Amino acid sequence: MSARLARLLAPRSVALVGCPADLSRPGARPLLYLKQHRYPGQVYPVNPRHGEIGGFKAYPTLADLPERPDVVWIGVPGDQVHEVLEAMARLAIPSAVILTAGFAETDEHGRRRQDGLRRLAESAGITVLGPNMLGFINCWERVPLTFSPAGGLEPLRPGALGIASQSGALGGIVVNRAFDRMIGVSAMVSTGNEMGVTVSECLEYFAEDARTRTVALVAEGIRDGARFRGAVARCTEAGKPIVALKMGRSRAGRKNALTHTGALAGSAEAFGAVARQLGIVEVDTLDDLVETAGYLSREARVPRRGVAVVATSGGASIMTADQLEARGIPMPRLAPATVEALGRLLPDYARTRDNPVDVTAGLSEDLFARVLEALVGDPGVDGVVAMVTGARGVERAENVARVAAAAPKPVVPCWLGGSLTEDGLGCLDARQVPTFRSPRALASALAAARAFDAARACWIARRPIPRGRPAPLPVTGPLPYAALASLAVRCAVPLVPERLVASPEGAVRAARRLGFPVALKAVGPGLAHKTEAGALALGLADARAVRAAAVLLLRRLRGVRLEGLLVQRMVTGVEVLVGVTRDATFGPLLVVGAGGVEAELRRDTACRPLPVSRREIAAMLGEVQALRVLDGWRGSPPRDTRALLAAIAGVVRLAGALGERLLSLDVNPIVVRSRGQGAFAVDLLAALVPADGSPRARPCCGAPRVPATPVRRIE
Amino acid sequence: MSARLARLLAPRSVALVGCPADLSRPGARPLLYLKQHRYPGQVYPVNPRHGEIGGFKAYPTLADLPERPDVVWIGVPGDQVHEVLEAMARLAIPSAVILTAGFAETDEHGRRRQDGLRRLAESAGITVLGPNMLGFINCWERVPLTFSPAGGLEPLRPGALGIASQSGALGGIVVNRAFDRMIGVSAMVSTGNEMGVTVSECLEYFAEDARTRTVALVAEGIRDGARFRGAVARCTEAGKPIVALKMGRSRAGRKNALTHTGALAGSAEAFGAVARQLGIVEVDTLDDLVETAGYLSREARVPRRGVAVVATSGGASIMTADQLEARGIPMPRLAPATVEALGRLLPDYARTRDNPVDVTAGLSEDLFARVLEALVGDPGVDGVVAMVTGARGVERAENVARVAAAAPKPVVPCWLGGSLTEDGLGCLDARQVPTFRSPRALASALAAARAFDAARACWIARRPIPRGRPAPLPVTGPLPYAALASLAVRCAVPLVPERLVASPEGAVRAARRLGFPVALKAVGPGLAHKTEAGALALGLADARAVRAAAVLLLRRLRGVRLEGLLVQRMVTGVEVLVGVTRDATFGPLLVVGAGGVEAELRRDTACRPLPVSRREIAAMLGEVQALRVLDGWRGSPPRDTRALLAAIAGVVRLAGALGERLLSLDVNPIVVRSRGQGAFAVDLLAALVPADGSPRARPCCGAPRVPATPVRRIE
Repeated sequence: MSARLARLLAPRSVALVGCPADLSRPGARPLLYLKQHRYPGQVYPVNPRHGEIGGFKAYPTLADLPERPDVVWIGVPGDQVHEVLEAMARLAIPSAVILTAGFAETDEHGRRRQDGLRRLAESAGITVLGPNMLGFINCWERVPLTFSPAGGLEPLRPGALGIASQSGALGGIVVNRAFDRMIGVSAMVSTGNEMGVTVSECLEYFAEDARTRTVALVAEGIRDGARFRGAVARCTEAGKPIVALKMGRSRAGRKNALTHTGALAGSAEAFGAVARQLGIVEVDTLDDLVETAGYLSREARVPRRGVAVVATSGGASIMTADQLEARGIPMPRLAPATVEALGRLLPDYARTRDNPVDVTAGLSEDLFARVLEALVGDPGVDGVVAMVTGARGVERAENVARVAAAAPKPVVPCWLGGSLTEDGLGCLDARQVPTFRSPRALASALAAARAFDAARACWIARRPIPRGRPAPLPVTGPLPYAALASLAVRCAVPLVPERLVASPEGAVRAARRLGFPVALKAVGPGLAHKTEAGALALGLADARAVRAAAVLLLRRLRGVRLEGLLVQRMVTGVEVLVGVTRDATFGPLLVVGAGGVEAELRRDTACRPLPVSRREIAAMLGEVQALRVLDGWRGSPPRDTRALLAAIAGVVRLAGALGERLLSLDVNPIVVRSRGQGAFAVDLLAALVPADGSPRARPCCGAPRVPATPVRRIE
Repeated sequence: MSARLARLLAPRSVALVGCPADLSRPGARPLLYLKQHRYPGQVYPVNPRHGEIGGFKAYPTLADLPERPDVVWIGVPGDQVHEVLEAMARLAIPSAVILTAGFAETDEHGRRRQDGLRRLAESAGITVLGPNMLGFINCWERVPLTFSPAGGLEPLRPGALGIASQSGALGGIVVNRAFDRMIGVSAMVSTGNEMGVTVSECLEYFAEDARTRTVALVAEGIRDGARFRGAVARCTEAGKPIVALKMGRSRAGRKNALTHTGALAGSAEAFGAVARQLGIVEVDTLDDLVETAGYLSREARVPRRGVAVVATSGGASIMTADQLEARGIPMPRLAPATVEALGRLLPDYARTRDNPVDVTAGLSEDLFARVLEALVGDPGVDGVVAMVTGARGVERAENVARVAAAAPKPVVPCWLGGSLTEDGLGCLDARQVPTFRSPRALASALAAARAFDAARACWIARRPIPRGRPAPLPVTGPLPYAALASLAVRCAVPLVPERLVASPEGAVRAARRLGFPVALKAVGPGLAHKTEAGALALGLADARAVRAAAVLLLRRLRGVRLEGLLVQRMVTGVEVLVGVTRDATFGPLLVVGAGGVEAELRRDTACRPLPVSRREIAAMLGEVQALRVLDGWRGSPPRDTRALLAAIAGVVRLAGALGERLLSLDVNPIVVRSRGQGAFAVDLLAALVPADGSPRARPCCGAPRVPATPVRRIE
């Protein structure tokens, strides 16, 4: 639990610095919202020119307050923020919420000013939310300490959905949309430039907060990758799904993310890898965020074995089946007893009595309820989807709500119509039956429940491959191939039988020992892409061919610094690419794909942050479409996936041995032979950062250098 | 123009057979809706037991009416429908709308009954809509002749969106949702079992109807593939986009489609191929259908060169950029003059002055309008997206609407909030400024405009490869390889140099003439998949190897019927799969993908119905991800795509020469060598249907055989 954030979000008293006396001005919003929602603590407007604001006694300075407030809201122009923080430090006030913009999201000048604030806050032990955000709304304790118009929504609906958003505007919109659907919110916290509190800290808070069951996350860029992963893991372990809208996937979007909250948007692929490992549900629209997170916050039961679908329109049943099947949600065949029961209940012209069941729209309410109950009673399904069209609104809605309340498994309605069915929808929303407006949203939410459930089980049971101890590495210059290969052998990476030699004669001797045919590769610090450099000869079938090729290679590479000639026995099989890259935010990532030159052409790869377990590696292999050939395909035999798994585990240990300085490691390809015949790494390539450099890119290094006057950002 | 459908949709008089006197019963809906909307023609309820219904004089039978009505609405039970049609035939009434269900969508019995109705209607020249649908709504002429509750919506909004739906319920929902957004509808026609009028005929109607600018199509399965393609082409040529929700993609969905409106759902891939060729925009939810079709029905200008984006929140700008970029919509850099103008208008803290522009939320209405105008004035953009957050609703909406009305290019707003911003949204909807609620929907609609525009240009300019004359084929039995190969040569398919021989000695002689290395393939009627049958030897480098391989093959295939041994010169290069398959609905389809065994592993193929133009073939090659290697990749040279195009054109001609009996043609692979060095087909395989069989699957062949009493389906 982030105790400091918990204190910040539930203050017994709030001072508002920069609160105008004219209540029609935007700056008065936090005061108005606190008043409107009868915030139970003390409110102290701080304003040197007025004795009273909005019915609250106002004070000239923080030092004049009758008590030390728990939180100070700072809404003054940028050049006065430092001063307020200084006063807070003197008075030992623990927490600040800084609305003001014009700091690290702007330019070098703004970054320096923010750094100054950070140093001051850290030395004084002040917890800071912001700057450049819209505050927070704590619905349970009635603390709408926010600039967002969502703070004025009536009523504040306390509930189980936690919201963490870097963007203040979007955080407010999520609250608004959730309330529109009667989805209760525990707290919405916007973090802006994250000088102090980050979304990771919010996740730590929500992981421990007993009233929060699900978190909606709106993120542009994660600043603290390791803490983020730890916080997500805590949520996952606590059984609280995180539904994330990760923005900044596009070039233009990333550029704006830099100037918006000053965050590097980071690689969407790396975020996706973390999400997959830890069970974060990724969505790409606000609608999906609210629908999915709202559903998961109210329904914890998971349709593991699938659902029964009942629809009042054939078209709707088809559409629903399409959407469920596309997301892998089973619609099992119904039990014979259920089919029989349906036969008794349904009229003759309702033709489909198995899943999905189309009851047609003419059914009476009584019969409809009995059909629903029959489906709920089917022992083979873990939920029932009720797809309703037509205008028989409130009556049908009450009927469905009644069955849902009594059912031991989720009954999930979806209402397709427009204004004609709004009354039914409102009725279900009001009765807290999570209801959808579209089969796509419904299917996405059910798929999210299943995906989180599966990822959580995998995460809890995982036994990561030990990282091992870092090996001693040369301080400067590249790692010689011989050193890399010997390290690989120690890490149990199965290298193809090979010898590093110095001359054509040496190559011939090595080839004779290894057995023909062999491959010949020139090895040297500048020869990363061997096929392009003409430093490679394949399929050399006898001594003459080896000698000729060696002579040719050496002649072609005259003047190039060489470590030697590598002679390798040729092996054939399915080629698998395995690599480790370092993400600036999330550290080393394992990547697996199909080998060969086409690997880069397609985005058909799987990715996970290290450390990983063997089970995760196996799951990764299953995610790569092109690697289905491993199971045997069109007459080609099934491959030695067990050996492949062991080889990849070796690569993971090798990455660990290369330690913090590893920038990238490529083993491309590992050749996988038939079952029982092994898998062999035939190419190793590692890039290290010099011992004096930092392997992490510095955040904001690409930001513009134009100076600007940092002023208040109103939003 | 479908003149008969135009007459059906605009009757001067309507007879309602089966209209109950009790107006609270569902069967009275058409009468109530006609009355409510002051249908200008005559309404004749037909009911033998009442003299007046709902204020209209009722008549005992059709023969008693004072005039011959233009349309008869038939809402009687299934066993009475035939009788009504007979009466219509006697009275020469031209059109019927049959609500009643229980026909071809149920079972063999129902199919036979429907066939009886069809024969009667055809011989009497009666145009039939239905059975098993919910009628139609003609908004311009005020004819809500429908059972759908959408017929009771107030007011009916005439507009430019035509709706054709096989599902009656979904057709009504589309109308409801369109009206909710103030989107006007020209007509909604539901077609159900399509005994007479099909959605294809609806498209023909909308293509000619001057009031319709865009069509929303909800389809489960197309029954008349050729007519459908013709009708879509007419719409495309007329510049009227079709936005289609094609259902029945899933196994379960297809099953329900059969029992719903009795249509075979058909292959989603084939529909997709037709869509791509003719510019149909495919969507997969009702929301997208309404948003995209509604937009296109009101905005004909196309953002060909991209758009400028202005947002009042950084988060919103990022989200929008993500969505636009994901759909390939350019956000060009702004002209220097525009950037300069923005510099004058925006406060210092608004940091992004190029596309996308984040103005922050604090800007005054006056400045916001001037920013919009500056962007509209930028010569490099074809539209402006205005992304608005915050609660400044109606004022901002009126401002945007004012600028949009004066602008010579589209200004497209998107409002992100929930209930707090509904007033602004309503204001824009009311002023007929197409407005979105989500950047995803906005980006999809703009992408649809661009895709239709590009597809239309391509379609209008296309010069299809001539089909050629069908060749004479053997009446029974398979086509010998020699005959197929000689036909291929005549069609200018560039076969790799090859000889068909009968003995090992013949193989050696052929290999010497062709030049080593060669490949050897056993050819015979049962040897389709040569790699699996062990009927293949590759890379034979000299005469000895050829002889040994030929002896081995012949020994291994002893007892197998062989046409001979095919000796081919080995060629290497990029392998491309080309095939023609026959879809039951849409006829022959050309398929292109990457060659080799992995082709089937991935869905990375492109597909078009024949005939195709060379330009379409070139576009197909661009759609296949794996074929990007053709342009050169990682040191490998660019390939002879010109020769590849010519080779594929040859395959298309070959398919034409094989004519109506062609079931499938596989040329896998065509090997494409370096630029200037040609492309060679190294494998040909054709499957024909026997001359006495039909190449088309019969619709409904897999339907259940359970007898049932066909009764009225109420929905």
